[in-house]
Order: sequence, then structure tokens, then C-alpha cells
Amino acid sequence: MALKSKKFRWERKGLLGLRELSAEEITYILDTAEGFEQISSRTVKKAPALRGKTVVNLFFEDSTRTRNSFALAASRLSADVVEFTKKSSSVSKGETLLDTARNLEAMGIDIVVIRHSAGGAAKLLSRNINACVVNAGDGFCEHPTQGLLDVYTIRKLRGSLDGLKIAIVGDIVHSRVARSDMWAMTKLGAEVTFVGPATLMPGQVEQLPVKVSYSLDEVIEKVDVINMLRIQFERLGGNPFPSVREYSHYFGLTVERMKRAKEDILVMHPGPINRGLEMESEVADGKNSVILEQVTNGVAVRMAVLFLVNQAAAQKK
Amino acid sequence: MALKSKKFRWERKGLLGLRELSAEEITYILDTAEGFEQISSRTVKKAPALRGKTVVNLFFEDSTRTRNSFALAASRLSADVVEFTKKSSSVSKGETLLDTARNLEAMGIDIVVIRHSAGGAAKLLSRNINACVVNAGDGFCEHPTQGLLDVYTIRKLRGSLDGLKIAIVGDIVHSRVARSDMWAMTKLGAEVTFVGPATLMPGQVEQLPVKVSYSLDEVIEKVDVINMLRIQFERLGGNPFPSVREYSHYFGLTVERMKRAKEDILVMHPGPINRGLEMESEVADGKNSVILEQVTNGVAVRMAVLFLVNQAAAQKK
Amino acid sequence: MALKSKKFRWERKGLLGLRELSAEEITYILDTAEGFEQISSRTVKKAPALRGKTVVNLFFEDSTRTRNSFALAASRLSADVVEFTKKSSSVSKGETLLDTARNLEAMGIDIVVIRHSAGGAAKLLSRNINACVVNAGDGFCEHPTQGLLDVYTIRKLRGSLDGLKIAIVGDIVHSRVARSDMWAMTKLGAEVTFVGPATLMPGQVEQLPVKVSYSLDEVIEKVDVINMLRIQFERLGGNPFPSVREYSHYFGLTVERMKRAKEDILVMHPGPINRGLEMESEVADGKNSVILEQVTNGVAVRMAVLFLVNQAAAQKK
Repeated sequence: MALKSKKFRWERKGLLGLRELSAEEITYILDTAEGFEQISSRTVKKAPALRGKTVVNLFFEDSTRTRNSFALAASRLSADVVEFTKKSSSVSKGETLLDTARNLEAMGIDIVVIRHSAGGAAKLLSRNINACVVNAGDGFCEHPTQGLLDVYTIRKLRGSLDGLKIAIVGDIVHSRVARSDMWAMTKLGAEVTFVGPATLMPGQVEQLPVKVSYSLDEVIEKVDVINMLRIQFERLGGNPFPSVREYSHYFGLTVERMKRAKEDILVMHPGPINRGLEMESEVADGKNSVILEQVTNGVAVRMAVLFLVNQAAAQKK
Repeated sequence: MALKSKKFRWERKGLLGLRELSAEEITYILDTAEGFEQISSRTVKKAPALRGKTVVNLFFEDSTRTRNSFALAASRLSADVVEFTKKSSSVSKGETLLDTARNLEAMGIDIVVIRHSAGGAAKLLSRNINACVVNAGDGFCEHPTQGLLDVYTIRKLRGSLDGLKIAIVGDIVHSRVARSDMWAMTKLGAEVTFVGPATLMPGQVEQLPVKVSYSLDEVIEKVDVINMLRIQFERLGGNPFPSVREYSHYFGLTVERMKRAKEDILVMHPGPINRGLEMESEVADGKNSVILEQVTNGVAVRMAVLFLVNQAAAQKK
Repeated sequence: MALKSKKFRWERKGLLGLRELSAEEITYILDTAEGFEQISSRTVKKAPALRGKTVVNLFFEDSTRTRNSFALAASRLSADVVEFTKKSSSVSKGETLLDTARNLEAMGIDIVVIRHSAGGAAKLLSRNINACVVNAGDGFCEHPTQGLLDVYTIRKLRGSLDGLKIAIVGDIVHSRVARSDMWAMTKLGAEVTFVGPATLMPGQVEQLPVKVSYSLDEVIEKVDVINMLRIQFERLGGNPFPSVREYSHYFGLTVERMKRAKEDILVMHPGPINRGLEMESEVADGKNSVILEQVTNGVAVRMAVLFLVNQAAAQKK
């Protein structure tokens, strides 16, 4: 794979989603991230790759992890970072997303990292500005760097995703993580099963390249990796499940349930965890958990993405 | 002009308003900004001029454009930037503006960029602290870097402002942009006309160095440059005009109205635009619009201002 | 003292409070801060000591002074700074403090500067993460860098604290500043008197290494240094004193009261000042006031703390 990727040349000056990427492209990002992972473990965590470049964090939804992870990734590549949050902005004066982005571009921003509640927001930007656009989550569509850091983490610990059985459990319908994971994991050869109550399954799930199960107990023994999605109370309308206790009973990753899992199962979570709901604390902090490794790898993956899109943009000039 | 400015020496360690500047001083800032404009178009957008200096963005009003523009200008000159916004601050504990500023100064801040709803806030600071003070907008008084970037944009595209006819249209009374523009434009030889409904004209407008018109239709054919001010709903009390539709009918820059304008008229707007109100989208995005150039030039002009005030402060030590 | 400290080696990779530090350790921080004070007065205020390190400002309470002071200290040591405030964070999604900190650590943060309303928050973190932890104020417990900058300021102006009489006046019970001051000042040989109404005295004050007085008038003539605590209206429950006017009458530092003080008394305040309440403006801005020197010294002291904890962490690896 390393050999193959050496002949490869990354050509995209943005990262909108993983659906549109080839397995080769995904692999190339992961290989690039491996190089950057070392920088983050050095005493001096700095590379000059983006010196004199400006990255804007254009976040229209709350975020700790992703926003900080991108900011750190950009800083470690020596870029200047501009933080742009909804409240402190002209958006409260009614300016449109496009005007905001065009203005930032006019100021000489090189890369826009955008999170927005509307699906397609990143794509809309990328069609209308010349700066590089990196999707940090758009509606219920994609969260590509999360997908990448998930497959990076699995590949690092298992060597390859080829033939692995992976369960993604919980609120699938509202999860852009589930979608980006699905594309990345299946393209790299894994078999993905969406697990959750029928009320939290996407409408036409049978058209997606996944298996579906409505019972975690049926799946838990068979999988090599399990990714427990966060219940996002802030997004749940209606009553998708009778109670938190009931959800937890059927779909929570408990110590009890873990006893039936493969001994070396990798337990993942995109964070932040609702401890006691999606999983018990003993599992979150247990020996199979790779949740903090995911966070660490996220910085390396984002460094790779920022580096590659900037390089592609430079080549096109 | 370049020759003339070479003999000139900038002496002010702050920028409070354009009213007090000579034409020579304004020209000197514009000439300096020309040099900095190149830096922003380089691959590595960095100059070391303010390395080891600290600039604080002390903003008591919401702002995207101006705050980010100053932050980028400071970063490109290698300064450290401290963001200070109303909410995250001791101002919520009742500390006075002066105490806040004196404390920042005591921490070794070199330049304070201040935006405040009270006219004279920047001047108050400059009389009470030794750090450089740059006015980023004070009440309805001045917004000098906006005035500078406006004349910079016109000079760049027309060579000179001498003899140009310029209309500034809209809510003049609440506009610090109109005031700073007026001083900069008239000092550089342009003829300025304030255009708007009588209810949005300043009280003693006849004492200002401008013409006044209450009809955009009378003015539109004659001007070389038109600057469409933003209707700032958040500042309008009472009922200065019957309805948005009526305002737009008489004072909006429509495609229809543009047909009667000079073919090479420059269309400006300080942003953010209320599309469909001050101007139609086709005009905002049309061939005569220089709105995004204004934004680009704003960074260069602010780099020049930060550079010059810091240099003047260093010479005085 | 300088000689003594040269043989000393700082071993703590965090700073949780001053209670646990020896006089020698405190002195060593002050000596280190002296070196850094010079950097802040240079034209280029930069030292490379923390280049490639990342400091996060993890503030769960509002703060101007302390947050900016740490940010500037970190920047002047060339660290990258991540600002983390309550509102823009996953804490609003219900994530626990520990999860937040562990995630930041997983991203490769080197130093966490934490302010939290819960006493012991910094200690909790330090036991659970490997990154350096610096307490920027925890509940009513400690605010060690404030204590350090206070003794730094006194030592700088008086040569030593040995034998000095110091009054700390006001809302002692809610003041972490009073506690950190008490430990630092008494360990360096000063005699500390807590002064305030009985309702604002800690419960078992007789067990602390201080004198207690309920009358500022009894104390004012005798002390070399007076530290006027801020009345923190946001923390006062009940009715600890009949009225602001009455408090001010008995415990405010008025011009009148200052006439009875030693001529060279040092007047301190941790800021922000409620002018006219804890002290009259003429006193705050008068010749005995060292309030702004405190602010200036705060940056140097924080540079020293960040430098030392990072160095200790590096030695342990």
C-alpha cells in the first residue's frame, strides 16, 4: 500500500466527504498522517509546512474536540489560525454563509474548515470560493476527518481493515460520523453493520453498503471493532426510544455485554461520551477502549488533510 | 506622490480618526499599504515587522470583518494577537474601560485596537495609556481604517481621487464610515455627496465639506464612485423610513438604477450587505462591484497602520 | 537567596497551590521570574523556551486578567495557546471535566491552565492526566500565581518580605487570593493580618497562620503592605454586610484613612477594582499604589511557572 501510494498524487484542494474518495485516496491520506503523527510526539511539535498560510475555523455549531483538533493541527504546521464562531460574527447581522466565506477569502484565508448544521454547506462553499474547503461536519451528511481518524486508528492497531467486521451502534440516522465511517471502512475492505433501534435507522438503509441489525446482542460476539455513537439529545425530536434506561439496556455497551465480545475487540466512540448511556465508564476507560487514541490520531489526520489540500491548491496555481 | 511621501515622516503613535490627518499623512499610509499588499499575495504571507509585539483586539461591539482583518494584519506582521471580547471579560464584572486598558498595557501590550459604542472611546484611551491606540470604530464618529481602505481601493483603481465625484448613500447619521470616508475623500480632492432620506441625514450637515442630496436618482448619473452604506437595523430607533420596501425603492442600488450610472462606476459597500435592501445581489456581485477588493485592501491598510504607529512609538522611546 | 536557589532544582510538573510549596521553592520561582521580567520589557518580547509546546487556557469562570496574562506569558515563551471557554465547549454537551482534560491531553497539550469554581479541580486534573497542570484559581481554595505575583511585587520593591507586616482586607472567606497570599507571605517571613467583618472571615481562622482584626482603623497605621480584596458581588450570598456604604465606611481604603498609614505603604489589589468601594480612586491611582506593577509582574511570574513545570516534566520523561 505504501508503494502504491508513492506513485499516487493527491489532486483535491478540498475535502468534502469520503463518499467521493477512492480507496487509494483514503490510503494516501492515512499514509501522510503517519508521517505527521511523529511530529505530534516530538518535543518540539512544529513543522513549517503551512508557514504564512491562514486557516479559518468557521464553526456554526458547538464543538470542542474537532475545533481544537483542527486548530492544533494547523498550528503544528505553523499556520496562522483564525477562530470564527457564530456568536461573535456578522452572521448575527444576517450575513449569508457565502458572503462570510467570500469575505474571509478576500482577506487572504487559504483554508476554510467549516462545520454547519446544513448538509452540503461545505460543498456550497467549495463551489463558490477558491480557498481550500475542509468539511468538519455538515448536517447529517458527512464528517470526513472523523471517518479518516477512525480508519487510521483501526489500521494502526490491526494493520489493515480488509475483512474486519465492524459494528456502528446507536443513532445512525442523525450521525454524520456513521456515514463517513461507512464510506471509509467499506472502501478499505471492512464489513460494516449498522446497529440500532428501527426508529434511529436511515430511511433507505438497504441501499447503503452495510448490513443492518436491530439487536446489539446478536452482533456483539462477531465484530472486531465496535463504534458506539453518541446519543445527541440536542438533535433528537419526537420519542425515538421509550427511555434512556431502555435504550441503554438494549444498545448500551455494558461490562456484562463486553464479556461476550471478542477479547481483542476495539471499542471506539467519537466523543463526547454520555457515560452510562452509550457505554459504561468501565468500558470507556477499559483495556479495549481506543477512544483517546482516536483523539490523538485526529490531530495527525487533520494535519495530513490540511497539508494535502494546500499542496494541491499550490500545484493548481 | 511616492517621491513626496519619501521625505515625509509619520509621527503619530495612534490612529484615532481621519479628520485630524493631513492629505500627506493619508497618502503616506496608502503608500505604505501598497508595500504590504504584496505580502498578502505571497505564498508565505509573513513579514517580521512586529515580531515580539502584542496587539490586542479590544472589541466592545460585534464585528467579523474588522476584527478578523486586524487580527490577520497583525499576524502577517508576526505580532502576537490577544482577542478581547466583551462577554469573556472583566467588563461583565463592572470594570471601567480605562482600567481594562491600563491592565492590558501593564501586561506589555504594544497596540490596542479598540471598537466601542461610545464616540471618543479611542481618544479617551490614547490620552490615558502609553500603548499605541488604533480606532476600529467609535460610536457614530469615525472608523478610520475603513475610510483608508476605501480611498486606497479607489486610488488603486483610478490612480487618484482628485476631481472624482463620490456619492455616499443611506443611513448617514448613524454611519462612522460616512464620516471617515468624507474626511479621507475630500482631503484627497474628491467631491463627496451624502445621499439619503432627510431622516437619516446628520443635524448640521451643511457645515460638513459635502454636498447633500435627498434623491439617489438625481445623483446616480453623475458619480464616479458610489458607496452604499449598510442599513444597521440594530441602531435604528423610531421609524426613519416607512418600510424596507420603500427605502429600497428610493435608495437601493438596483439593476435598473445601475443602467443610468457611468459605465465604469465603482460600487462600494462596507459590508456586511443586506442583499436586496441596499443593493440587489446582481449589483453586489456585478462587474462594477469592488466590495471584495475593499476587504482585501483592508488587510494591507491595517498592516500599514499597525506598522506605522508601532514605528512612531519606537522612535519616541 | 540567589546563591541558595542556584543549588536548588525545581521538581514539580504542576502548580496546584502555595500551601504545599517550601519557602525555597517559592523563592526559586521568584528568581526565575526576575529573568523573564526582562524579556517583557524588551523590544522583541520573545523567548524560545516553549516553542512547539501547546498551552491550553481551560477557564470555567470569567476572567480577563488571569486568562490574558497566562496567554501572553505562554506566547512570549513561543508556545501555541488554545483558548477553551465554557460556552464554546463540549461542556455544554455534558462532558465531564476529566473527559475534557483527557481529550485535550490526547491531542498533545503540554500544559493545562485551569480555572474552575470547584475547589480541588486542578488537583483532580493533575492526578488524572500526565500533562502539566497549573491552577489559575479553584473555588475558594487557591490562586497560586496571584500569590506569587504579590510576593514578587513586594520583594522587588522592599528587597525581602522578612519581618514585613501585611494586611489583607475584605471578603476573606470567599477569597482564594487571600489564601494563596497567606501561604506565600508567611513562608517568606511576613506577618499577615486578615482584616474584615466577622461575617466575611473564614470559619476556623484561628487555625491559620495569621492574625485577625475586625477593624481596619486599628491596623492601618502598623502595616507595610495592604492588599485590598475585591468585593465579589457575584459570590456573596445572604447579607454579609448591611450596605455597600457601610462596608466602604469601615473597610474601604479612603484618602482619609491613608493619611494614617505609613508613608511608604504598598497598596495592592488583585483587580478588577470596584472604585469607591474597596478603595477610592485617588488611592487606586495614587503614589503608594502598586496595582499595575502587580499586573506587569504577573506575566513574568506566569512565564516562570510555565517554564519550570515544563522543564520538570521534560526531566521526568
